[in-house]
Amino acid sequence: MTKVRVYVAYKASILDPQAQAIQAATHKMGYQEVTELNVGKFFDFDFDADAELAKEKAIEIANELLANPNMETYTVEILDEQSEGVN
Amino acid sequence: MTKVRVYVAYKASILDPQAQAIQAATHKMGYQEVTELNVGKFFDFDFDADAELAKEKAIEIANELLANPNMETYTVEILDEQSEGVN
Repeated sequence: MTKVRVYVAYKASILDPQAQAIQAATHKMGYQEVTELNVGKFFDFDFDADAELAKEKAIEIANELLANPNMETYTVEILDEQSEGVN
Repeated sequence: MTKVRVYVAYKASILDPQAQAIQAATHKMGYQEVTELNVGKFFDFDFDADAELAKEKAIEIANELLANPNMETYTVEILDEQSEGVN
């Protein structure tokens, strides 16, 4: 079993009003230390597969389902791999 | 400057229809290896502060703004700390 996290976020060229609104809210609340904010989604998968296959499948799923290639980018991270029988 | 990532996700006790729908979609697409899926949001902050202060502020912002304490949990991770003047 392999745990894989897929991060999906807007491309840098895409304006994100949600992130701007949250950053403005932090400033109104007195957190002037916040100089930049980006927001995205993450997807934590358990795969019944080894790390190599799980990463490959996660990239396919990100391309075909999770990310909008026009506006978003994704990254894939292996969180954990467990031997057969352990889980 | 410190980069901090805040993860916000539903508590394990909260049903997440979005995650269920996405998991069902992966199965329909032939990815039977997916045995579990959890979905959440992440918030990437740049703080004009050292790592210790940035983490403290990020926890306050998560508590006061980002996470719904009734349904959600959050974790805070320091991604990167840069010396003054470097950035």
